[in-house]
Amino acid sequence: MKIGLLGFGVVGRGVYDLTAERSDMQVAKVVCLEEISLPDAEVTKDYPSVLADKSIDTIIEAMGGLHPAYEFVRAAIEAGKNVVTSNKALVATFYDELIPLAKEKGVQFRCTAAVGGGIGWLSELERARRMQTVEQVGGIMNGTCNYILDSMTRLGLGYDEALSQAQALGYAEANPATDVDGIDTWHKLILSSNIAFGVSVDSATVPVAGIRHIAAEDVCNFKEHGYVCKLVSTGIMENGKLSAFVQPTLFPQGEPEAAVNTNYNLITLVGSASGRMSFYGQGAGRYPTAYNVVQDCADVLLGKGFYSPYGGKVCADNSLTRRFYVRGDRDAWLEENKQEAWGNALVTKPVAVDALHRWLKDHPGTFIAALPNE
Amino acid sequence: MKIGLLGFGVVGRGVYDLTAERSDMQVAKVVCLEEISLPDAEVTKDYPSVLADKSIDTIIEAMGGLHPAYEFVRAAIEAGKNVVTSNKALVATFYDELIPLAKEKGVQFRCTAAVGGGIGWLSELERARRMQTVEQVGGIMNGTCNYILDSMTRLGLGYDEALSQAQALGYAEANPATDVDGIDTWHKLILSSNIAFGVSVDSATVPVAGIRHIAAEDVCNFKEHGYVCKLVSTGIMENGKLSAFVQPTLFPQGEPEAAVNTNYNLITLVGSASGRMSFYGQGAGRYPTAYNVVQDCADVLLGKGFYSPYGGKVCADNSLTRRFYVRGDRDAWLEENKQEAWGNALVTKPVAVDALHRWLKDHPGTFIAALPNE
Repeated sequence: MKIGLLGFGVVGRGVYDLTAERSDMQVAKVVCLEEISLPDAEVTKDYPSVLADKSIDTIIEAMGGLHPAYEFVRAAIEAGKNVVTSNKALVATFYDELIPLAKEKGVQFRCTAAVGGGIGWLSELERARRMQTVEQVGGIMNGTCNYILDSMTRLGLGYDEALSQAQALGYAEANPATDVDGIDTWHKLILSSNIAFGVSVDSATVPVAGIRHIAAEDVCNFKEHGYVCKLVSTGIMENGKLSAFVQPTLFPQGEPEAAVNTNYNLITLVGSASGRMSFYGQGAGRYPTAYNVVQDCADVLLGKGFYSPYGGKVCADNSLTRRFYVRGDRDAWLEENKQEAWGNALVTKPVAVDALHRWLKDHPGTFIAALPNE
Repeated sequence: MKIGLLGFGVVGRGVYDLTAERSDMQVAKVVCLEEISLPDAEVTKDYPSVLADKSIDTIIEAMGGLHPAYEFVRAAIEAGKNVVTSNKALVATFYDELIPLAKEKGVQFRCTAAVGGGIGWLSELERARRMQTVEQVGGIMNGTCNYILDSMTRLGLGYDEALSQAQALGYAEANPATDVDGIDTWHKLILSSNIAFGVSVDSATVPVAGIRHIAAEDVCNFKEHGYVCKLVSTGIMENGKLSAFVQPTLFPQGEPEAAVNTNYNLITLVGSASGRMSFYGQGAGRYPTAYNVVQDCADVLLGKGFYSPYGGKVCADNSLTRRFYVRGDRDAWLEENKQEAWGNALVTKPVAVDALHRWLKDHPGTFIAALPNE
């Protein structure tokens, strides 16, 4: 396999290092804006020349962002090249276009590193789907949020302090919005649900609540009731109805999710035969992520394409109910649904997930977390 | 794929059910001693007739035990049939014979369900090995022991009470020795190490300590110091030296291992690129186990054989040190290595793992547990 590598940042450099030791794949050209030189690969800013190079059969996209990653990946498929990417935003956003196009053009398209970094999560879904119906997916999919929540829980830090520490360690970006507002987890849930259930989820119907407004007093309230808070994605397919949402969620101390520390991820599927299976590992980082990119290349060599057939558009129906912890704004609807007080916050009676998220849209400074499903 | 299924107990029946829905594989004959009749498969006691049936290409061994499973599996390989088994004792014990023989005869041999039941652990090892060096394997591999230890820890039960409950629930057998003495975990560690490191471990050099002698007072001592006790296997390959042992091990509360409840398993590998990856799921049970047997059949259809090349004999060198909790017999050696008292028990200074296990052989009523590696 001769590879054209787009981007030479954290992941791109890792891919270059890991493939350097292999005889079955070789990074022949690197497209990047930096002035670097490599002993055994041509470095260029001229992407069309890479596409025109017939000896290159596979493009690895490791640039991140939607543009020009989308244009570059689309052009690669059009040019008949296999594509491997770790870009969850790209694949989740352009799913309806890229997956059918890859099939039409007869090229392989894989993106295992896009969800779970070092965890081979999408490959696990692919394997599970061979043999059973996947009924549920989700879990802790963002290491940055987990690092912040874990520091607040175990070290007693405030939100700002925990975020600063995550930034100092390189776990969070200067503008942490994509992580702390749950967008990263949301993309990963959409992609996971698409593959697990063989559908294309209408992303507008998948609500997301992040951790930006969590405060030390919330963590105290959770501790007092024996809970640990995690940012969690949930996708459930039951009798043809899809529930899908991202929200802070409480787990009893002693449960596996509650024991996910620092920047680790824990992603779960429930299968009709296997029951619950969970996968724990580094959700990001140079070599864990590059590892799954290179795994994808090995699968492309074996002729493996996308993880599941492209499935038609479905809307999530989030009418299932949960109890919610709510601290911040109050109004008549909330008071009407109040079940008990936790400090200055309240816990609702079971309310529909979509109703709570609709309410939250009108009260954007409020922090919410779902209680465990009973 | 036409299958000859040996055994129609918990796993065998599960395999029959899961394959019934599939077009790519079919249980054509079932060899078992019970008088059953099946609508779409011949039931027979005559194994030679199944071997002589040229239309049957794959034998699934779901009988358990060493004999006649060994003779049946060996005969299947000799007859040129692929073999899928969930029998860890069989594969660990006859590794040096069966794995090279399968290669010589050009048949596929897989045993994913032998370790971790519903967790595709050996497949995970196979995938990890494609792309990196596996440096460490191990974890909680026995659901029976975990159920007993968890009941003692979270519910405060005594050992006998916890064992009775596990037996009542079908998690433990009438004679629980294979589980509680760690033999089951030991077989799983040997098999995992063989595949992870591409060797054949001399089982006589792998010491095992079980949980038979744990008492409520031990659990109290652990709680007081913030620990949870689990029966854990450890295999480490470092600079060509293999450490391999099975022993009760303490984990700080809040660590992933400490949060493995009821009869779940958590099995971990550390890879040179991926870092730590852990796999959580049902370690036993009809459909989880049958699920991975059928997964193996699907891999056999894809031409996938054993997980790693057969590697030569190695002896474990367990000179690495740990601190140990010891309650029971005392003698001069132990007093000399004593670091502190925990109730009526003591905690040693760091001592060599093999030295402690040699001591334990002479003091078989004593309970020991390793402290976390610092």
